[in-house]
Amino acid sequence: MQPPATPDEGTVHLGHSRIDVDRRARTGDPEVVFGAGKSPQQVVEILTTLHAAHPDTAVLATRLSPESLDAVEQHLPGAVADRLARTAVLGPLPPARGLVQVVAAGTSDGPVAAEATVTAQVHGARVERIDDVGVAGIHRLLAVRDRFTEADCLVVVAGMEGALPSVVAGLVGVPLVGVPTSVGYGTGAGGLAALLSMLNSCAPGVVVVNVDNGYGAGVHAARVARASARAAAAPAADGGQAVLS
Amino acid sequence: MQPPATPDEGTVHLGHSRIDVDRRARTGDPEVVFGAGKSPQQVVEILTTLHAAHPDTAVLATRLSPESLDAVEQHLPGAVADRLARTAVLGPLPPARGLVQVVAAGTSDGPVAAEATVTAQVHGARVERIDDVGVAGIHRLLAVRDRFTEADCLVVVAGMEGALPSVVAGLVGVPLVGVPTSVGYGTGAGGLAALLSMLNSCAPGVVVVNVDNGYGAGVHAARVARASARAAAAPAADGGQAVLS
Amino acid sequence: MQPPATPDEGTVHLGHSRIDVDRRARTGDPEVVFGAGKSPQQVVEILTTLHAAHPDTAVLATRLSPESLDAVEQHLPGAVADRLARTAVLGPLPPARGLVQVVAAGTSDGPVAAEATVTAQVHGARVERIDDVGVAGIHRLLAVRDRFTEADCLVVVAGMEGALPSVVAGLVGVPLVGVPTSVGYGTGAGGLAALLSMLNSCAPGVVVVNVDNGYGAGVHAARVARASARAAAAPAADGGQAVLS
Amino acid sequence: MQPPATPDEGTVHLGHSRIDVDRRARTGDPEVVFGAGKSPQQVVEILTTLHAAHPDTAVLATRLSPESLDAVEQHLPGAVADRLARTAVLGPLPPARGLVQVVAAGTSDGPVAAEATVTAQVHGARVERIDDVGVAGIHRLLAVRDRFTEADCLVVVAGMEGALPSVVAGLVGVPLVGVPTSVGYGTGAGGLAALLSMLNSCAPGVVVVNVDNGYGAGVHAARVARASARAAAAPAADGGQAVLS
Amino acid sequence: MQPPATPDEGTVHLGHSRIDVDRRARTGDPEVVFGAGKSPQQVVEILTTLHAAHPDTAVLATRLSPESLDAVEQHLPGAVADRLARTAVLGPLPPARGLVQVVAAGTSDGPVAAEATVTAQVHGARVERIDDVGVAGIHRLLAVRDRFTEADCLVVVAGMEGALPSVVAGLVGVPLVGVPTSVGYGTGAGGLAALLSMLNSCAPGVVVVNVDNGYGAGVHAARVARASARAAAAPAADGGQAVLS
Amino acid sequence: MQPPATPDEGTVHLGHSRIDVDRRARTGDPEVVFGAGKSPQQVVEILTTLHAAHPDTAVLATRLSPESLDAVEQHLPGAVADRLARTAVLGPLPPARGLVQVVAAGTSDGPVAAEATVTAQVHGARVERIDDVGVAGIHRLLAVRDRFTEADCLVVVAGMEGALPSVVAGLVGVPLVGVPTSVGYGTGAGGLAALLSMLNSCAPGVVVVNVDNGYGAGVHAARVARASARAAAAPAADGGQAVLS
Amino acid sequence: MQPPATPDEGTVHLGHSRIDVDRRARTGDPEVVFGAGKSPQQVVEILTTLHAAHPDTAVLATRLSPESLDAVEQHLPGAVADRLARTAVLGPLPPARGLVQVVAAGTSDGPVAAEATVTAQVHGARVERIDDVGVAGIHRLLAVRDRFTEADCLVVVAGMEGALPSVVAGLVGVPLVGVPTSVGYGTGAGGLAALLSMLNSCAPGVVVVNVDNGYGAGVHAARVARASARAAAAPAADGGQAVLS
Amino acid sequence: MQPPATPDEGTVHLGHSRIDVDRRARTGDPEVVFGAGKSPQQVVEILTTLHAAHPDTAVLATRLSPESLDAVEQHLPGAVADRLARTAVLGPLPPARGLVQVVAAGTSDGPVAAEATVTAQVHGARVERIDDVGVAGIHRLLAVRDRFTEADCLVVVAGMEGALPSVVAGLVGVPLVGVPTSVGYGTGAGGLAALLSMLNSCAPGVVVVNVDNGYGAGVHAARVARASARAAAAPAADGGQAVLS
Repeated sequence: MQPPATPDEGTVHLGHSRIDVDRRARTGDPEVVFGAGKSPQQVVEILTTLHAAHPDTAVLATRLSPESLDAVEQHLPGAVADRLARTAVLGPLPPARGLVQVVAAGTSDGPVAAEATVTAQVHGARVERIDDVGVAGIHRLLAVRDRFTEADCLVVVAGMEGALPSVVAGLVGVPLVGVPTSVGYGTGAGGLAALLSMLNSCAPGVVVVNVDNGYGAGVHAARVARASARAAAAPAADGGQAVLS
Repeated sequence: MQPPATPDEGTVHLGHSRIDVDRRARTGDPEVVFGAGKSPQQVVEILTTLHAAHPDTAVLATRLSPESLDAVEQHLPGAVADRLARTAVLGPLPPARGLVQVVAAGTSDGPVAAEATVTAQVHGARVERIDDVGVAGIHRLLAVRDRFTEADCLVVVAGMEGALPSVVAGLVGVPLVGVPTSVGYGTGAGGLAALLSMLNSCAPGVVVVNVDNGYGAGVHAARVARASARAAAAPAADGGQAVLS
Repeated sequence: MQPPATPDEGTVHLGHSRIDVDRRARTGDPEVVFGAGKSPQQVVEILTTLHAAHPDTAVLATRLSPESLDAVEQHLPGAVADRLARTAVLGPLPPARGLVQVVAAGTSDGPVAAEATVTAQVHGARVERIDDVGVAGIHRLLAVRDRFTEADCLVVVAGMEGALPSVVAGLVGVPLVGVPTSVGYGTGAGGLAALLSMLNSCAPGVVVVNVDNGYGAGVHAARVARASARAAAAPAADGGQAVLS
Repeated sequence: MQPPATPDEGTVHLGHSRIDVDRRARTGDPEVVFGAGKSPQQVVEILTTLHAAHPDTAVLATRLSPESLDAVEQHLPGAVADRLARTAVLGPLPPARGLVQVVAAGTSDGPVAAEATVTAQVHGARVERIDDVGVAGIHRLLAVRDRFTEADCLVVVAGMEGALPSVVAGLVGVPLVGVPTSVGYGTGAGGLAALLSMLNSCAPGVVVVNVDNGYGAGVHAARVARASARAAAAPAADGGQAVLS
Repeated sequence: MQPPATPDEGTVHLGHSRIDVDRRARTGDPEVVFGAGKSPQQVVEILTTLHAAHPDTAVLATRLSPESLDAVEQHLPGAVADRLARTAVLGPLPPARGLVQVVAAGTSDGPVAAEATVTAQVHGARVERIDDVGVAGIHRLLAVRDRFTEADCLVVVAGMEGALPSVVAGLVGVPLVGVPTSVGYGTGAGGLAALLSMLNSCAPGVVVVNVDNGYGAGVHAARVARASARAAAAPAADGGQAVLS
Repeated sequence: MQPPATPDEGTVHLGHSRIDVDRRARTGDPEVVFGAGKSPQQVVEILTTLHAAHPDTAVLATRLSPESLDAVEQHLPGAVADRLARTAVLGPLPPARGLVQVVAAGTSDGPVAAEATVTAQVHGARVERIDDVGVAGIHRLLAVRDRFTEADCLVVVAGMEGALPSVVAGLVGVPLVGVPTSVGYGTGAGGLAALLSMLNSCAPGVVVVNVDNGYGAGVHAARVARASARAAAAPAADGGQAVLS
Repeated sequence: MQPPATPDEGTVHLGHSRIDVDRRARTGDPEVVFGAGKSPQQVVEILTTLHAAHPDTAVLATRLSPESLDAVEQHLPGAVADRLARTAVLGPLPPARGLVQVVAAGTSDGPVAAEATVTAQVHGARVERIDDVGVAGIHRLLAVRDRFTEADCLVVVAGMEGALPSVVAGLVGVPLVGVPTSVGYGTGAGGLAALLSMLNSCAPGVVVVNVDNGYGAGVHAARVARASARAAAAPAADGGQAVLS
Repeated sequence: MQPPATPDEGTVHLGHSRIDVDRRARTGDPEVVFGAGKSPQQVVEILTTLHAAHPDTAVLATRLSPESLDAVEQHLPGAVADRLARTAVLGPLPPARGLVQVVAAGTSDGPVAAEATVTAQVHGARVERIDDVGVAGIHRLLAVRDRFTEADCLVVVAGMEGALPSVVAGLVGVPLVGVPTSVGYGTGAGGLAALLSMLNSCAPGVVVVNVDNGYGAGVHAARVARASARAAAAPAADGGQAVLS
């Protein structure tokens, strides 16, 4: 593998792409490589470059092909690859602030839930997983409802009819992100049914990301958790009696 | 109003339409007038004609405009008009066989639930209504779950994300028809989200009708109830040990 | 193959999924494995686990890949695999109560009709098949119309323009489930044309399931048949003269 | 009303539009005014202009508003206005050559069937109407099937699930044009279900026009009839034994 | 290969399908095998069966895979296979009556045009091909416009924006069937743009078939040609002066 | 106006609907009336009932018609009606905790931004408005970018191409909810373009609500702010060094 | 009318909106008011404000309601209102540089063509109109083809099947913008067919704007013309022999 | 390889296609081969034929498969193949007149930007590339904004939410073509989100081509540049004071 390029003014020029190594300063988020469409060698090279620029914190790669995961494991022994989530993480995780719960309806939603989990961890949140609580067996969901109130943000992953976020959002007032998955067939193929279901939730306050976008949900959820932690470190931010603007 | 035409060979020729007065013999269902796009006078005339052909059982008119409902009340004092369901019924109801429960998620789903209710009654079923049990307040639904097992068929009406049939179908093994309603806005306008949600239910055995089609759901549910009653009057129909064909 | 896990509180934890072994008590339906996306080993393992929990009645696996069907035949000699339906059944069938007729328009609709057939049998109904009665040769359909009145529930399977349920529902008053299939090309590819056709049937009482969802139709149809049988065992359920609510 | 403009080189310039008075020579079809979006005065003016250019044969106006129909009746006493078809015809009809049958599924399809009827007559065909033969009452359709073989071209009009053309095309080998109508609601609103149904017909040789386009179907059907008549006037056109090109 | 089954009452039962050998008597069309989804052996078997039932006229197979075409050539030496059209024809063609012109916009539309051509020939029409006359080079189209008037029916095949039928239909009054093809990419992928374009043609009388459905267009066009020939053999069918119904 | 009904077990039964007065205890959110489809009298009655059950905190009504706003102002002098937001608020606002910024692209997005603003205030957040910062004049957006870092949650409202959330989310790491609006025409009519744009944002962590759903965005944003405040009142919640699960 | 506000730092704050009066310096384009959704008084006020800031050049208002057009004519006697284009122009036009031809398929496309015309003139181009050259009468189009070569940019407006840009772009190499219009019905309603047709044109180099967006096409076309003029005033810009990058 | 066919009357007949060698005289554009669906041998053959007819200027082939690129490199040593753009160019480039800037949002948009680049060069423009300026890192875009004013036409390529053209068009008044790319997943798959975003841009004057159609954008942009150069060679084309038509 060729040696990584030298960072310059917040941008690193590799042969195949320009890497924005300034994003962290701008947004507080770690650097991320979107692995789809990139060769195994490119993935390894970008991870190496980003890690060299930020040796003190984790960088994340998502949507990795099996070949890219193989290459990461072979060339970057310090990286942690996750075959289910299709991710790799290189460098130490940040301190975990706040709690994100990732709730999944069924076994088939596992890969997307795993991507959300790894992403939220790399973005600085503690994560709990709650699995197999689909709405067709509501008793399993109700058995864990008390746990939901402990979370700073919920990520609720479901395919097929995508009803789970509506039911969970009716149980607690915790901020909640719905993630539709492309699990299904016929009119549900591609996740359209689940996406529309979540966008039209009868429960208030459900926000949504694109189909299978566990990464986006993980980023948002971790940001919410980080905001909680930031507030905890500062004096109480009560703004007094509100007035309607 | 001009006098109704004379029935002839199973068909009545009015000026504006040919009425099939033979349907009942063919399918066991009552005669029905689809009122959308028909003038108040036409509605009254067709109801009168069908009632004359079948004085011993109810005929049903659906999708009536306020003007048509006014005309029915004025010209057909024996008819029962329902402003919410937008229906009118003329003639005695058949004996009620079996039990249909019509379950509605929210207040806005009321008109469709009412259409399903009247339809099932005219088609020979007893009907119970269970209202305001949307999934965003799951405790209200669970409070009535034991009642569901008493039904011969469930008609579950919901708009927005349309999750209610999935949750109910996970609770009981009763035959269940989902009815999506056009309640909603944005991407949910027109009922598409609810329809797709029900078609892609993760709970097994949910069948679906078109958006706002309370009539179709009522017909199917009543037929299921009638089948139950027919079986009850006959010797037990156990077919012995099944074999895979 | 590793030994199956031990059931505990209605749920079995295998390495890859949590199995709900309580569903039968809740809904009266048998246990089912949705085989899509599962490895042959996982399918065999789950079937084994479910069968151990319910040795006295059949468990069903659907959407099996050819490899999973091979594995079932090799490792579970007591199972019955159906290559056309892509199903496997392990354990004795329940007594057959009521009659479901599965009606298919054309040869290409065969796999979906077969899935509906096996499903209804495993869910406790007797099943008859009526094939190749597409609407483009209406004489073949009319030749069998008298048989339709014997059914407790009809499952009507059709691709392309999906007109068959409309025609059949105009002939008899038996409860009828339409199953659109993804047979077709151009604008009909994916089954959208057939699905919309059935949702918009001019014949009253047609209910619909998702494209290619023979399983869902089979469950509903068998439930209708079971309801008929339950009624037959109890005193007549006539509710007296109905009243409009 | 201002006096009509003078024709010049196949085009007449009115204040509001340029009228192509040469189309008849080019295609053999009569002149037609598409009335949608035109004022009553414009409709009258264009009809007057076209009639002056072609006094020996009919000109047709379609999609007329009630106000335009009023204006035509008031200002053009020689014109024949049809309130159902929303058409007006000015000038003598051409000789009727060949037979077009316009077949309609239900009462609501009447306006589109009427537009097809008038159009085919103005384009030189004899037209028969066959109404209320929807597929939900297949016996009414079968009662008239022998008549279909007499037609040179069939125009089959249906809304909702749009199944009628498939059934008719399975009965006879006559050229057949399907016309989907916007009759319906929910997913069928706008005629999409009927259009897709006809495009995906399992019966061979069904051709289709746009939703509610009775005019287009009438033009095509009359052209087919005219072709038949042209052939009848000439010596037999048998091309001998065909060869595969 | 196993010996073909024996015909019985208009239907032949092979192991895998029931063949309707009565269609020709009913519609005048030849027998056709839709080859998609059928194995090479099944195609050969059905062709053999149909040819045995109708040795005096051609049977047609469409949508054949390369493997099925190989099998036809190997096992049925009397058959004519067309690799571009993906068709096979077995048995003598009927006499050619009337003229169908198949007009194609570009080279990529060739397979669909070829399917329409073979189909029309097997259904009894003489066929001429006019190729590479897309609207982006309108001079090539105008160079052949005089030939269009000789046709009894035009089949106009185009992908991408599908404008060719509109332009041709503006030039002549011959019956015209548009065939959209799935040639294109982006929003045009799948033929939707071409289909909508043809359905919304500003030229009157354009009728349309499903995307890539050269077969359907060929059947319709040949029927129009056969109608012309039938008329030619009979006394002139002038219906006298038409009257508006 | 009839006197309000008596609360009972968390539910109040009015003639027209059952009101859930228990939601606040369950989720911490205030009571809300969705005004669409309700009569002015019903809106007033439900607001009165909810206010009687919760006199110490605000209740909110959204999507009010002008007539309902009139009725609220006439009958409930203590209520604050907002004509732009189409909302009414009755009862004292809760203390404002945390800061929500509502950012709007253009003047036409004002009503949706106003609904989000009022909702977030009623749900307990302080709100700042930043208007007219559409991406076509990027200098206006950059002029206020430093303010964004002060917010606990951003609500970014945009119609047409909906690009604003992507640009803002690239500037700061604050949790951000995009709200597409139905401002636009042609292919953008109904807000589809803006919705898809936000779902597919190239900036990480953008979450989305349904078109025009300012209410949903306001609920989520206020919940995020409340979470921040809850954390501030408790000891620091640092979870120590995270580990990849 | 209240006196207009004072400009300040490139932005004028009226009560209802902030006006960007700096756009001209940034892009060279004039100021424009999008009138949809604005009251007549607001339109007049904004036009007055913009004209005060830029008295030496025209400002444009588009999508004006009849009431706004009335108000403009009453309150701004110096303005030129166009009822067909639904525009108003206040202030002197810029010098006309370059030639834009606006080509329209039919009479119904007139309003969109008029909007494009006025827009291009206000943005500094000379404009010629060529009307009624739809593809169904190709001879009219060919009669004017030589004129197309004189234009610096063509704006081609068409509804229904939208084929005109493809045909024109095949005739000349002039830059060409297609504008689909919402003229049509059925599947063509809303302009989707025309939009897709233009996006998928088989003629190279056709660019497209949103449905009915005559304004956008006018801006682009005038910019192309201004670029031509700018080049004419400078020394020749030949870049020498190109090299493939 | 067989020898190329002889040109004749502006058309060359190869075995597999008719080549229009007259297009250059008609439109001033070079000859182009659309390589999708053509075999490597066909591509080489057509390039050879076109080059023989126009040896003094470049011919272009697009959408070449890797195999076709291999064949071009092997058989046509004078050709320049571009693996990223999937193009091949044979013959000398024309003189470069005017400047096209091709601006790309991200690395994944590279192939489409490369196709636009090569196309514009072959069509006679000088091209500059500006890469990796996506809106999520707006500082990179602002760093290059001054360069945009030097272009005669901008081609702006973006996938996902496709916001880049809106932002760029708000910065400068240069003619701008947006090219949506199929980069993305979920609801963005296929480029629909980016396409709708660009069609609905809030910035005036953005014109659009089909998804991934770098070729079409390159043709239009080069034509704009050629128009600029043509104007530069002629006397100033100021048309004097414009008048509203």
